Amino acid sequence: MKYAIIGTGAVGGFYGGKLANAGKDVHFLLHSDYEYVKKNGLQIDSCDGSFHIAAPNVYNNTLDMPKADIVIVALKTTRNHLLNQLLPPLLHKETLVLLIQNGIGPEPELQKHFPDLYLAAGLAFICSAKTEPGRVNHQCYGSINIGNYSCKNETLFKTMIADFIEAGIKTAEIEYNEARWKKAVWNMPFNGMTVVMNAQTNELLAHPATMQLIRRQMFEVIGAAKALGVKNIDESFADKMIENTLNMTPYSPSMKLDYDFHRPMEIEYLYSNAIAEAHRIGYSMPCLEMLEAQLKFLNKKQCETK
Amino acid sequence: MKYAIIGTGAVGGFYGGKLANAGKDVHFLLHSDYEYVKKNGLQIDSCDGSFHIAAPNVYNNTLDMPKADIVIVALKTTRNHLLNQLLPPLLHKETLVLLIQNGIGPEPELQKHFPDLYLAAGLAFICSAKTEPGRVNHQCYGSINIGNYSCKNETLFKTMIADFIEAGIKTAEIEYNEARWKKAVWNMPFNGMTVVMNAQTNELLAHPATMQLIRRQMFEVIGAAKALGVKNIDESFADKMIENTLNMTPYSPSMKLDYDFHRPMEIEYLYSNAIAEAHRIGYSMPCLEMLEAQLKFLNKKQCETK
Repeated sequence: MKYAIIGTGAVGGFYGGKLANAGKDVHFLLHSDYEYVKKNGLQIDSCDGSFHIAAPNVYNNTLDMPKADIVIVALKTTRNHLLNQLLPPLLHKETLVLLIQNGIGPEPELQKHFPDLYLAAGLAFICSAKTEPGRVNHQCYGSINIGNYSCKNETLFKTMIADFIEAGIKTAEIEYNEARWKKAVWNMPFNGMTVVMNAQTNELLAHPATMQLIRRQMFEVIGAAKALGVKNIDESFADKMIENTLNMTPYSPSMKLDYDFHRPMEIEYLYSNAIAEAHRIGYSMPCLEMLEAQLKFLNKKQCETK
Repeated sequence: MKYAIIGTGAVGGFYGGKLANAGKDVHFLLHSDYEYVKKNGLQIDSCDGSFHIAAPNVYNNTLDMPKADIVIVALKTTRNHLLNQLLPPLLHKETLVLLIQNGIGPEPELQKHFPDLYLAAGLAFICSAKTEPGRVNHQCYGSINIGNYSCKNETLFKTMIADFIEAGIKTAEIEYNEARWKKAVWNMPFNGMTVVMNAQTNELLAHPATMQLIRRQMFEVIGAAKALGVKNIDESFADKMIENTLNMTPYSPSMKLDYDFHRPMEIEYLYSNAIAEAHRIGYSMPCLEMLEAQLKFLNKKQCETK
């Protein structure tokens, strides 16, 4: 099994690194860190035990990479337009592309351009950040929920999951929509609220007003998911997510980091797509729609001052 | 008719100044500006024609003031707890107290402490600010809606309105609840949103996402008012308010100025009271409830960093 990692950052660097460290055949695409990692390797500082990949297979162009059985896409969704060019050199007839990305809808969107491609969703419950070139800091958690979107080769899919588990990654296979919407229960409140309120997760949960608001926003996501027919999700999941967050060290979600470092925010996949899906069946998420509007305003303001 | 002005700032200074400039017998209570105004008078820079009150009747204590027929309270509602001490020296048997204040509920709250007092609400549609001691800058608008809450002396009430009109103030008598809730249609979206988004009115209306959100929030207020039985208010009022705001120069509402100058915000009267009134009859305003939570969070954060 050959793995290609598209986007070797906080997420792709961690999961790709774990697979490589377990002896899997992993090929990393890098962009700004290419020269550094080629020379110095990849360092994973992890709460579960740090490790170093001294000589990873690194590339700065997918044209130079071997065809892969599994392509792991760990780009921000704001860069998904690049996939039309990045993917083709990596694909053989039965390649499975796993999108470890947040939000609702990246698989159907990509499937439009590659109708026969095998696709799966990876939802990472992880606190990690790329702290410097070639260096990932894994603070806590790290499990991944994987949902099959359109992979018809069951053996390939199961082998990938077995590889993940063998590499020490806590991995669960769950239904595709359940995987995406469950992650949205955490993502939609915390990503936007940390940006708009300029605060970390712990501060938001320390004030009763914002704690209640976060819970209300979680209920909006759960309500939308239930209305859309997603199984195994109910209001108690909100309490579990809040409990987990209270146990985390103070955390800035990826959108907060993106905003602070003047990178584009994943508003489309994290908010607009979810809101549009819910509207399609007549379900409204007023507080999250308000949050989307606030984020769009901040995004535009930041672009204008660049 | 003797007038007492409690709170000689952007609002009290303007309306009290207009009355004094028209020859009415007006007595001003001042706090920080007392010495300055005693020496230099009161300057009103107004889009309708500037004027100067050279020797106003000024006091720094209501114990020194004459009893008044009309007491105009133009304090922020965050200081309404002071009224229990400030008012009694000014009251005779038939004094009417006009609360020119924003929000829902200041009259019933004050009536609890003064059960027989005549009370009325004044809702000012004005862009003004106190720019320096003893100086008010009146940028635009300036009309006032007055609603009778508990004044049993109809002659007194009508005389006050006639005095306002004589002083060149565009004044309308409207039903009490209509007066308070109509003003809330503008106040609730713009006060909070300018604070949370750190933007002026024009910026919020220039982005389609926040423009739509402001309209949605206005609809929430209108919906609550209608559910509460308020007359003469419907969705078209939102368009009128947005239209008016588009015609204003870029504006920072009072709550935005309060926040920027590290003063407490009027969250209780502008948001919590309105939300509680609506909840009492089972009506919810999700976007404004979210805004209230965001404001409470910011308020607490600012208090902590003081």
